[in-house]
Amino acid sequence: MVIVAGGRGSRMKSQLPKQFIEVNGIPLIVHTLRRIRRFHGDIEMTIAMHPDWIAYWNELAMQYDFQAYAVVPGGAERFHSVQAGLELLSAEVVGVHDAVRPLVSIETLQRCFDTAAIQGNAVPVVPVTESLRRIEGGFNRAEARDAYRIVQTPQCFHRRDLLDAYQQGYKPFFTDDASVFEAAGHAIRLVDGNPENIKVTSPQDLMLAEHLLKENPA
Amino acid sequence: MVIVAGGRGSRMKSQLPKQFIEVNGIPLIVHTLRRIRRFHGDIEMTIAMHPDWIAYWNELAMQYDFQAYAVVPGGAERFHSVQAGLELLSAEVVGVHDAVRPLVSIETLQRCFDTAAIQGNAVPVVPVTESLRRIEGGFNRAEARDAYRIVQTPQCFHRRDLLDAYQQGYKPFFTDDASVFEAAGHAIRLVDGNPENIKVTSPQDLMLAEHLLKENPA
Repeated sequence: MVIVAGGRGSRMKSQLPKQFIEVNGIPLIVHTLRRIRRFHGDIEMTIAMHPDWIAYWNELAMQYDFQAYAVVPGGAERFHSVQAGLELLSAEVVGVHDAVRPLVSIETLQRCFDTAAIQGNAVPVVPVTESLRRIEGGFNRAEARDAYRIVQTPQCFHRRDLLDAYQQGYKPFFTDDASVFEAAGHAIRLVDGNPENIKVTSPQDLMLAEHLLKENPA
Repeated sequence: MVIVAGGRGSRMKSQLPKQFIEVNGIPLIVHTLRRIRRFHGDIEMTIAMHPDWIAYWNELAMQYDFQAYAVVPGGAERFHSVQAGLELLSAEVVGVHDAVRPLVSIETLQRCFDTAAIQGNAVPVVPVTESLRRIEGGFNRAEARDAYRIVQTPQCFHRRDLLDAYQQGYKPFFTDDASVFEAAGHAIRLVDGNPENIKVTSPQDLMLAEHLLKENPA
């Protein structure tokens, strides 16, 4: 698994990058790593992180017993960070997961890895529950939300195929691994994510994560 | 303003429809109505509600001092409920708001009514913060989230134009008022909503609303 922890700490109006913000006394990334380790005790993991924060993480890794996982310095874009993290893995099926998604369920992890093992890849999604409008030029129009899914992580792949896909040049629309894999000619397999598996990016998300993690700790 | 309170109480696994669930000791719909009354003390409102729940509401209306607002029995679809609620209004500019959106800000309400007064309509939206995929036939593909917006309420309109739009026959893709108004040939004006203005539909949403309403009571 590659854990993407690229946050540098601007959006939340806090000096600390999001992945290090404490929720119930424990940094978000620690919640996330514990959850993944609960899924599979000896899973292979690399953590991609901005170089400025690696020393900070090394302290935490000692404190929370995550020294076993290699840390790679993140690149200019998420794309380059994932690529660097991938190169250190050797498992046949690998996942890429956001450090700020501590609420991924064991069932979602299992579904993603199982499906990717058999079908080549798996991307967890949940339904869109609000009305959507699409902007085009100066206009906008209603869109049928049933035709859309919200994408989560972990996104799982056969490692060799994903590494091959990452040989393409970086393009701005590569916002996740599915978009990279798709641009390399593969069809994406969707599986059910879990609704609580939110990406913690706003103060509102933090508040929700705090409560969900109290009910269901990593 | 038409308040749409059509919930009959299945999705949340509670007998009580969502709009009546207590948050910090007060039914959701009461939070919502208080917020709107704080925006404008003598705003005209009608409440569209399933006939089975009108007696229940009448008790609450007495308790919380909302007897002044007319209640109309909701129809088979949201479309028919809004139509019935609209017919009792006389203001030049009217809004339609979900009873389960207690966190609409005064600023959002102001923006919607002001813009609709000048431009004929206004629909509050917020950006999509997660990756989207679009399903087509057996396939799916990445979509640029920048091209999409999530739609909220209140959706505001010149009353006569909206009433005219509601003369169309009901169609299944009428999921909100903007879609009805658009199908009648109008271009929709988008304005900024506020991110906390969530539609409370899941236990997760309830938890979040509880905390946001503690910080910022109606």
